Amino acid sequence: MAVVKALDYPEHCSLEEALEILLAKFALREPRIMEMRPRDALGLILAADAVSCGNVPHYTASAVDGYAVTAYSTSGATPATPIALAPSEYSWVNTGIPVIEADSVVMVEDTSLETVGGVERLKISRSVTQGENVRAVGEDVMNGQLLACRKDRVTPALVSLLLCAGVKSVTVFARPRTIFIPTGNEIVDENTWLSGEKIPPGFVVDSNSAYAAALFADWGHELDVSRILPDDPEIISEAVLKAAGQYDMVIVSAGSAKGQRDHSADIFERLGRMSFRYVRMKPGRPAMAADIGGTPVICSPGFPMSCAVTLWSLVYPLIRAMSGERDECRGAGYISRAIGSRKVLKAGLLTNHSSPAGVLEWLRVKCAEVEGRKFCWPLTSGASVLWALAEADGIAMLPEPALELQRGSEITVLLTKPVNLSNRLLFQGSDDPAVNLLVSFVKRAGMELVIRAVGSMGGLAALSRGDAHFAAAHLLDTSDGTYNTSYIKQFSGGKRWRRRLIFHREQGIIAARGNPKNIRDFEDIASGRVMFENRQPGAGTRVLLDYMLREKGIESSGVPGYDRISITHMEAANKVASGVADATLGIKAAADALELEFIPIAKEPYELVFMERFEEHPAAGVLLEAIESDEWRAAVARMGGYELPQGGSDAS
Amino acid sequence: MAVVKALDYPEHCSLEEALEILLAKFALREPRIMEMRPRDALGLILAADAVSCGNVPHYTASAVDGYAVTAYSTSGATPATPIALAPSEYSWVNTGIPVIEADSVVMVEDTSLETVGGVERLKISRSVTQGENVRAVGEDVMNGQLLACRKDRVTPALVSLLLCAGVKSVTVFARPRTIFIPTGNEIVDENTWLSGEKIPPGFVVDSNSAYAAALFADWGHELDVSRILPDDPEIISEAVLKAAGQYDMVIVSAGSAKGQRDHSADIFERLGRMSFRYVRMKPGRPAMAADIGGTPVICSPGFPMSCAVTLWSLVYPLIRAMSGERDECRGAGYISRAIGSRKVLKAGLLTNHSSPAGVLEWLRVKCAEVEGRKFCWPLTSGASVLWALAEADGIAMLPEPALELQRGSEITVLLTKPVNLSNRLLFQGSDDPAVNLLVSFVKRAGMELVIRAVGSMGGLAALSRGDAHFAAAHLLDTSDGTYNTSYIKQFSGGKRWRRRLIFHREQGIIAARGNPKNIRDFEDIASGRVMFENRQPGAGTRVLLDYMLREKGIESSGVPGYDRISITHMEAANKVASGVADATLGIKAAADALELEFIPIAKEPYELVFMERFEEHPAAGVLLEAIESDEWRAAVARMGGYELPQGGSDAS
Repeated sequence: MAVVKALDYPEHCSLEEALEILLAKFALREPRIMEMRPRDALGLILAADAVSCGNVPHYTASAVDGYAVTAYSTSGATPATPIALAPSEYSWVNTGIPVIEADSVVMVEDTSLETVGGVERLKISRSVTQGENVRAVGEDVMNGQLLACRKDRVTPALVSLLLCAGVKSVTVFARPRTIFIPTGNEIVDENTWLSGEKIPPGFVVDSNSAYAAALFADWGHELDVSRILPDDPEIISEAVLKAAGQYDMVIVSAGSAKGQRDHSADIFERLGRMSFRYVRMKPGRPAMAADIGGTPVICSPGFPMSCAVTLWSLVYPLIRAMSGERDECRGAGYISRAIGSRKVLKAGLLTNHSSPAGVLEWLRVKCAEVEGRKFCWPLTSGASVLWALAEADGIAMLPEPALELQRGSEITVLLTKPVNLSNRLLFQGSDDPAVNLLVSFVKRAGMELVIRAVGSMGGLAALSRGDAHFAAAHLLDTSDGTYNTSYIKQFSGGKRWRRRLIFHREQGIIAARGNPKNIRDFEDIASGRVMFENRQPGAGTRVLLDYMLREKGIESSGVPGYDRISITHMEAANKVASGVADATLGIKAAADALELEFIPIAKEPYELVFMERFEEHPAAGVLLEAIESDEWRAAVARMGGYELPQGGSDAS
Repeated sequence: MAVVKALDYPEHCSLEEALEILLAKFALREPRIMEMRPRDALGLILAADAVSCGNVPHYTASAVDGYAVTAYSTSGATPATPIALAPSEYSWVNTGIPVIEADSVVMVEDTSLETVGGVERLKISRSVTQGENVRAVGEDVMNGQLLACRKDRVTPALVSLLLCAGVKSVTVFARPRTIFIPTGNEIVDENTWLSGEKIPPGFVVDSNSAYAAALFADWGHELDVSRILPDDPEIISEAVLKAAGQYDMVIVSAGSAKGQRDHSADIFERLGRMSFRYVRMKPGRPAMAADIGGTPVICSPGFPMSCAVTLWSLVYPLIRAMSGERDECRGAGYISRAIGSRKVLKAGLLTNHSSPAGVLEWLRVKCAEVEGRKFCWPLTSGASVLWALAEADGIAMLPEPALELQRGSEITVLLTKPVNLSNRLLFQGSDDPAVNLLVSFVKRAGMELVIRAVGSMGGLAALSRGDAHFAAAHLLDTSDGTYNTSYIKQFSGGKRWRRRLIFHREQGIIAARGNPKNIRDFEDIASGRVMFENRQPGAGTRVLLDYMLREKGIESSGVPGYDRISITHMEAANKVASGVADATLGIKAAADALELEFIPIAKEPYELVFMERFEEHPAAGVLLEAIESDEWRAAVARMGGYELPQGGSDAS
């Protein structure tokens, strides 16, 4: 029987529990306070009430441009019965000028000057009451008046008010001094990474420090970043202990997993008191925290998305609480602020989604709207993938009880980008690098094109469900050698779809540079000495492969790697380029981009297929113009393997 | 007949028109572009697509901690039928370590090491497929892949992604260089203002520069602030011309009205081409703009609220557009961003409100919720009032067609503060400085108390309408000399209100320091040689005055200033302190605070009156504790003129 060591901290927490532990340990005591000029305190939280040091205005002032008079002298004045005053009875005052020996001001609009017998007189066409158009001393703010309370934030308006009220300094909660300590033998710093030197395999750039620093800047906080520490427990221990003494919060990046180089848990247990070890969320599970000499030390896992999630969900609320904003650290709202979301979108899942049991799942989500129905879909669940976080429209949090979510299930997306769904086209269909170029063209015209590479059949199926504005296909009907027609007939279900041939493209076998395995045709692919990389079921390229294999009488089971799947031409070609596979079937453009060998097999028509009312979409014109543009056509021509039609080739 | 000079620009515009003019003139051309490191570009807008400079990862890497193996060698492994590999067949890999001479990685969780006959072997309990737990080259990002488009914002995630993808620099739209030029003979700079020197009447601090600088900082933009220029057209002209040559945008503060010292319009017409002269909004009407040498020059009116409104509604969207974010400058959304609002509240007006005809009106609004009904009310409409902007919960914009808005009309408030209405108590009733102190006590406990001084009767009336959580009254029933009881009976309409005497306070005649007019009683007030400052109808103090005058047989028409109204004790006393009035009736605390003469007249009970279910409110306990606290009682005792009950004095 195994002996289980009793822990004096919760090993596995929910995010709420982990946050409660952090707040209870580190945010109950009073944050450090500082005194500073109001202007330097912008954005900080007052630690003490701010009280006026004078009256505003500090003298009786005119509130308008006009003439200071005694109200009594204007009694009865109307446009029909103006009253004229002698020069000794009035004096011009600009707005803000002291009103002396007068008790009111007539607005300039209600007066005219006339000269009678060489003497100038003021004609007044509206009477004023005592005090009218006059700002009394202290009318805005009185000496000793409470201007803002402890716990109020210093806003631009308060900065200005405090200045007017003669307040020289305010007492505010200091922001926690925070340091980020990247660790890992494999991590290289930004300058080395960008130096142009070849970085050997096994080394990656310190992207987490860059992300954390940028995120803190977005939050309006400062972050010190330490030099990168090697995976040496002694060196890391020493640095963490020193940092815990100098800073209000320490973030140790990586070393949180179970690998042989992951020392953070041991170090935390040795130097201080563990607060929690794992958080029931994905990604971010190995996030942990400890109390080292009274300072919170948080370990954020090394994968970029895990690091991001830890910063949003644990570091941000703790930093806010330690800045005197404890009230801001509860509920869903703080995540919105942490990720910079200003808007929430409720949208139905475009695909089924399995969320892991008993775990809060963070999704990076892309959104679209087709015919009034709002969709969203997760980009990837890989914690190591950086691209998806930059590409996502927002973040969705699937709570622990969420498990098998059916297509159409409504989820809540915290949008992190200004998304205008009505200007956004959703394309689903066959992957193509030339089509991908259109994203940028559409964006430049103020519209958006979102692409989901789901294969030719996937695109037609999406179109039939109303899940896309347009699709694209290059599907060979092996019964008659035609492309697309029979498939469109099958999927459209009587709806009137429009088609547009945008180019022909060359398909062929892609092999490694120099073709070391001497691959010439499909017999070589099936020879057993070649590892093939296939495309997903429903991809036009896979349909072509299957047709070719059938023609040659080759069983798919005889092709090593037939079950290995890449989703795009570039991904498949990249497997060949990096030696993971020996060959794939794909377009010439992908082979050319990676300087691989290309053995031509077929020339295929690639057609866009549109929803019936496609042209009513605000972005449709922009897309169609881009396809016609010389710039796009030239860019496509440069890619190789494409044959563009001469003019617009439109067929319904 | 007057000769009307034809203008070549629209003199009076709506805000939408003014903004359209600015955007059409200054935001159509391409903003300046700059190249910089991705990390320095945080928050900026890309002027060109950003494309990956390498594959991420750049080598085949393990995605987990485990053992690199050949998938084939694990075929058939299950927990029941583990497979053992010899040391030459596996090698340990941490996450991120290159996978060489292997095609997959078995997770450490699915393995165990055993030593058989002195030879270590790896027992594998789950088979893997080719490529499993391996990150292929370019799996995250491929060389040449589009990472972000022109017009995309550089987010923290993108900074990190660009770094990983080896992108050394990005091309972004530069933020417009902007200068703020304060003008006015009466304006003194911050250092002089806070120097402790006595500032003579007629001089005010340059609060607009402080506000503008803080607001720009909140926007994440930089703002240069020039020295303060005198009201000299030559000096201002020269400075504006120079600034227009050096900056992308110039803001001239003040000089926009019709006073003798308002030169901006003349200067703008002389130096350049006027864009518009007035904007149909209040405040902010005299905001104007011109094109001077191709540079937008905007004149923001001098009153603080007018200046703020001009910065929000004209400067902010133009700056965004000139930063490459033209799409962000339309619709209501940009005002939210300009004022930092993250939330909208729809609430009913607590009072009738007359909005001026044909003008967009900006309101500074305070909010509360009583028994599930959300209320809001404008704090003041004075453009000169600074306090209200700092105090407001948010901003409401009443569009041009809004005129007479009835009590209860729903308006939309853009909240600029984190407001939790359910934690907020709304007090309406008799003004009292000791009660005002409670605001800070309640705030410190994480709750809020909002006070509207509407007089004793106003408070009871509000309570009867359900427009307040509690009220306060000191209303003398002249028929029997009792306080409050008969009034509460009248207003409560059978509802069970609770009462609580919190103190007695001394009322008396407040006269100038040294009592120069030798005022002893109400006969002196009615003597004709004394200017009186009265309180509003319904105020308990006014009820007392009327009673006293009636007792003495004095007609109110015989009291000079009887119709002059201050809303609070301090405001009325301040009128006396600043010489606008000779006397008022008020509490001793107000006289003491301003070191004025005080002639005692009466000692009044001051009672809080609560809604029936008051104690169910989350903040009720905090308020009642504050009233019992030694700290508040001591502070009240120090104010003078108060007599606190010994223990809790509670009556229903």
